[in-house]
Amino acid sequence: MDVGHRMWAIPEGYIPGKSFQSEREFVSHETACILNAGGAPANVTIEVLFEDREPVGPYRVVVGAKRTLHLRFNDLRDPEPVPRDTPYACVIRSDVPIVVQHTRLDSRDPHISLLSTIAFPIT
Amino acid sequence: MDVGHRMWAIPEGYIPGKSFQSEREFVSHETACILNAGGAPANVTIEVLFEDREPVGPYRVVVGAKRTLHLRFNDLRDPEPVPRDTPYACVIRSDVPIVVQHTRLDSRDPHISLLSTIAFPIT
Amino acid sequence: MDVGHRMWAIPEGYIPGKSFQSEREFVSHETACILNAGGAPANVTIEVLFEDREPVGPYRVVVGAKRTLHLRFNDLRDPEPVPRDTPYACVIRSDVPIVVQHTRLDSRDPHISLLSTIAFPIT
Amino acid sequence: MDVGHRMWAIPEGYIPGKSFQSEREFVSHETACILNAGGAPANVTIEVLFEDREPVGPYRVVVGAKRTLHLRFNDLRDPEPVPRDTPYACVIRSDVPIVVQHTRLDSRDPHISLLSTIAFPIT
Repeated sequence: MDVGHRMWAIPEGYIPGKSFQSEREFVSHETACILNAGGAPANVTIEVLFEDREPVGPYRVVVGAKRTLHLRFNDLRDPEPVPRDTPYACVIRSDVPIVVQHTRLDSRDPHISLLSTIAFPIT
Repeated sequence: MDVGHRMWAIPEGYIPGKSFQSEREFVSHETACILNAGGAPANVTIEVLFEDREPVGPYRVVVGAKRTLHLRFNDLRDPEPVPRDTPYACVIRSDVPIVVQHTRLDSRDPHISLLSTIAFPIT
Repeated sequence: MDVGHRMWAIPEGYIPGKSFQSEREFVSHETACILNAGGAPANVTIEVLFEDREPVGPYRVVVGAKRTLHLRFNDLRDPEPVPRDTPYACVIRSDVPIVVQHTRLDSRDPHISLLSTIAFPIT
Repeated sequence: MDVGHRMWAIPEGYIPGKSFQSEREFVSHETACILNAGGAPANVTIEVLFEDREPVGPYRVVVGAKRTLHLRFNDLRDPEPVPRDTPYACVIRSDVPIVVQHTRLDSRDPHISLLSTIAFPIT
C-alpha cells in the first residue's frame, strides 16, 4: 500500500535570520519532516520558489526505507544556501510515496515559538 | 499537472490590533502564503467574510508564474482595510491552481506566538 | 458549488483552566472557527466526546449565510459547560456545507501560545 | 458512516528532553489525540520510525467507543520508551475508523510553545 504521495507543496517558508542563542536545538530553523514508511529508499528533490526571482534547485536528499528525515532547510547548501529573512515556498518530489510535515522554530524573540502543519499533497 | 486548487477557504482570520514593537517583522500580522508552481501568472481574488456584516471584496493580487507571495492581510487596502481585533474568514479564488497556507504572528503579548495550517481546498 | 463539508472532527480539545489575565482576548480559550460561505444559514450541532464518560450534546449554533462564527468552546452552556483542564474531542455537523478550523490560545503561562489546524472533514 | 480512517501518519515527532517545570501539564510532551466516534472500541497500534535505526513497535492502545484518547508519546513504555531529543515519526493503525491530531507542548524554554496539526490520513 502507498503510504503517502510523491509530490508535496509547502507555501510558507521563512527562516528567521536571528536566534536568541546559538545551540543547534534553539537556532531559528525550518524543517521538512519526511516519513518514508515504505520498503525502498526515497530519492527526494526539493525546488525552492521565491517572491521575486527564479526558483532554485533541485536540492537532493535520500530518506532510507522505513526511516524519517527531519530535514532543516537551514542545512541545504547545494546548489546554494536558502536565504534567511526571505519568504520562500517549496515543492518536494519523491520517487516513492512519502508524507511531509512542515515545522518552524522561531527564536528571534528571546522565547521560542513553533508552528507546524502537514504539507499539501499534490499527487 | 495541476499543482493545487483554484479555490481555498480560511475560516480563522484575526489580526491582533496590538504589537509589542513596531518593526515590520514583529508587528502582529496574518498572511495567506500563496504558491503558484505553474507556468502562468495567477490572478487571485480574496473575499473577506465577517460575523455580523456583509462580505467585503474582492481584493485582487497577482502571483507570478513559479513564484510565491506571502500576502499580509494587514496590507490589503482596496476596497478597504481589514479591521483589526475582528474575527473574519476568507475565500480565495484563482484562475490557475495554487496552494495556500495560513499563518499568524501574534505579538500583542511581549513575546511572539505563531500558528499555521494549510488552508482548506474547495475545488 | 459546495464550499466545504457537512461533518467535521476535532480530536484535540482542551481548555486550560488558568489564564495569566482576565481580559477576554487573553483568557485561555479554544475555538471552532466556522465559515459558511453559502447562501443559506447553517444549523450546526456539536457533540463533545471525552476520555472516560459518555458524550455530551448536542450543542447548537447558527451561522448566517455568508458569515463566519468564531465559536469559543468556553462559551457553550447548554446542555452543560465544557469542563476545563479536561481532554475532549468533538464532532461538528451542519445542514449545509461549512469549513471548520480549530484554534487554541493558551495563557496558563504568563505568555500566550497558539495552535491551529483545519479540522478534519468527514462528509 | 465511517468517521475517519484506519491508518494515519505523523512525520514530525520530537519529545524535548527538558522542561522548565515538572508538573505533568507543563512537562514537554507530544500527543496523538485519537477520536473514536464510532460504536465499537478501536484497537490501535503505533509504529515509531527513526532517522538511523530500525522502527520500534507496535505500541498498543485501546480507545473506547464514543471516546477520545489524548495519548502522550512520553507515556509509552512497551516495547520501550520513546527516546527524548530524538527525531522520530509514526504510523498509527486502527481496526475501526478514527481521526488523529498531533500536538506538542515544548517547555524547554521557560515559556511554553505549542504546535498542532491534523495527522495525515493514509487509508
